[in-house]
Amino acid sequence: MTRILFYLDEPGKDVWRPAFEAAMPGVDFRDYPDWGSPDDGPAYAFAWEPELGLIAKYSNIVAVFSLGAGVDHITRDTSIPTDLPIIRMSDDGLKEGMAEFVLMTVLMHHRYMPRMMTAQRNHKWQRLFPKRAENVRVGILGYGALGIACADALKPLGYGLAAWSRTAKPAESGIEHFTGPEQFNDFLARTDILVGLLPSTPETTGLLNKDTMGLMPKHASIINVGRGTLVNLDDLVTLLDSGHLAGATLDVFTEEPLNDSDPLWDHEKINITPHIASITRPETAAEYVANNIKKIETGQQPDNVLDRMRGY
Amino acid sequence: MTRILFYLDEPGKDVWRPAFEAAMPGVDFRDYPDWGSPDDGPAYAFAWEPELGLIAKYSNIVAVFSLGAGVDHITRDTSIPTDLPIIRMSDDGLKEGMAEFVLMTVLMHHRYMPRMMTAQRNHKWQRLFPKRAENVRVGILGYGALGIACADALKPLGYGLAAWSRTAKPAESGIEHFTGPEQFNDFLARTDILVGLLPSTPETTGLLNKDTMGLMPKHASIINVGRGTLVNLDDLVTLLDSGHLAGATLDVFTEEPLNDSDPLWDHEKINITPHIASITRPETAAEYVANNIKKIETGQQPDNVLDRMRGY
Repeated sequence: MTRILFYLDEPGKDVWRPAFEAAMPGVDFRDYPDWGSPDDGPAYAFAWEPELGLIAKYSNIVAVFSLGAGVDHITRDTSIPTDLPIIRMSDDGLKEGMAEFVLMTVLMHHRYMPRMMTAQRNHKWQRLFPKRAENVRVGILGYGALGIACADALKPLGYGLAAWSRTAKPAESGIEHFTGPEQFNDFLARTDILVGLLPSTPETTGLLNKDTMGLMPKHASIINVGRGTLVNLDDLVTLLDSGHLAGATLDVFTEEPLNDSDPLWDHEKINITPHIASITRPETAAEYVANNIKKIETGQQPDNVLDRMRGY
Repeated sequence: MTRILFYLDEPGKDVWRPAFEAAMPGVDFRDYPDWGSPDDGPAYAFAWEPELGLIAKYSNIVAVFSLGAGVDHITRDTSIPTDLPIIRMSDDGLKEGMAEFVLMTVLMHHRYMPRMMTAQRNHKWQRLFPKRAENVRVGILGYGALGIACADALKPLGYGLAAWSRTAKPAESGIEHFTGPEQFNDFLARTDILVGLLPSTPETTGLLNKDTMGLMPKHASIINVGRGTLVNLDDLVTLLDSGHLAGATLDVFTEEPLNDSDPLWDHEKINITPHIASITRPETAAEYVANNIKKIETGQQPDNVLDRMRGY
């Protein structure tokens, strides 16, 4: 019988127990604080932003599953043993959700929706002729499983697609690849709508700043759906206010939730969403955890274990 | 040498002359009021909301091309001879633009963007778990060339798709067809997000009213991108305020532009856009007109001539 120690401090958490009971018949699903004792036997944590010190206290935990693709909400807890496997979420529902959100926000920037919404607030009937999609250059910054899902969703619309990644990717039709620091500036210079999908590492922190975003074409837009650390927000606001950038959609922030007194909320050219681009979908996520536990218990290597040296 | 009499009273009209000159080398492109004399020889009008009486005055006009898919902005002028062909726009750019806009707004309603935008205005970090696309039922009301383009764009996302049309359509995979008045209520009852794409006729005027929209599931949304006459707006507001409907995107209105004192502009659950869903794209539209003129001049039947009996 598999034991799941569940931690999520949000409304709507009730959808998770039935999803796990469907994916793992007979599961012993324990919702925090009812985790029982570390002596109850081996268990798997399934958690989002667990309290500091909690994971280390439960020495019966065999592996920690993150409720989302990112793991910094777990690794911020330095008391967690360094040999305890931390496993990123990578279910189909997550990719599907990210692809939907990126497709939606690319279309919103392409079709001038931020300006339309401002016009509505001002009771202005303001018709704008958008470019054809083939003349709009979309750039995906970070090309792992989620980036590929986004590219697949964008391709049918005919956008001019490119992706940047740290390491080289196999050539593929319908998308131009840029690799490594030496091709980063060229990638920025050809990108009208940038989709940020990089993990949070020392190298990616503040990577989008005044200098780098200044290389983008005038009226470019930024969509950040990876990690908040990617974008220097003061520089973003400077470039939006100067008119160099046209708009931004921010789904992720260095501190979440974003403080309710933050002036970003009121910036006319910034759409803020509460880290929901690829909000995990219970049906598919529970199946992913079940399959990965099966791998661990039959001595196989589980999928998507955090590499602590690389940071993702 | 082909003569075009052009009428468009909008900012941004300057993009049209070069588009026609590219599609029809040597064209005599005359921008209103410089239309010259009716004695100058045969000409084609290419117009949006031409002044009443103007078309009839130019007896040299062989056919009137509408700048958009709709023609009511032309047929409202009852002085136009009933045997003068009126030709609807149906270029690829138009279909592409409509498909983009519908895909974008379906995603926006599916992913709770109207509620996210309200939350942003209120500085609220409010995470909502959206349904998977396969559990969201999208219904396309009106299934001509534009409706088919929208369905093709929506299919890859896995939505539960249906379409309603006046006359039966051939069966097709990935979409359920409803036909005629007798299947209209069933279509409404299964539709979470409705895409209005009907032309303006006596039968479609006020078709979406308190009774019919009341048949839709609770929290359904309305996207109207066809003609404004389809939706009874007082009834729409009543159903939004009662909570039966979750939101609406309105791109078309009975009177355009929408009056700047209209209370609709300030309704929190209504997104207003200024008839830009399938705003015509000059490159492709000019080519469409050139091809249709070639058909007329070689004695063939031109595409998409208005059938005045049916009204579209």
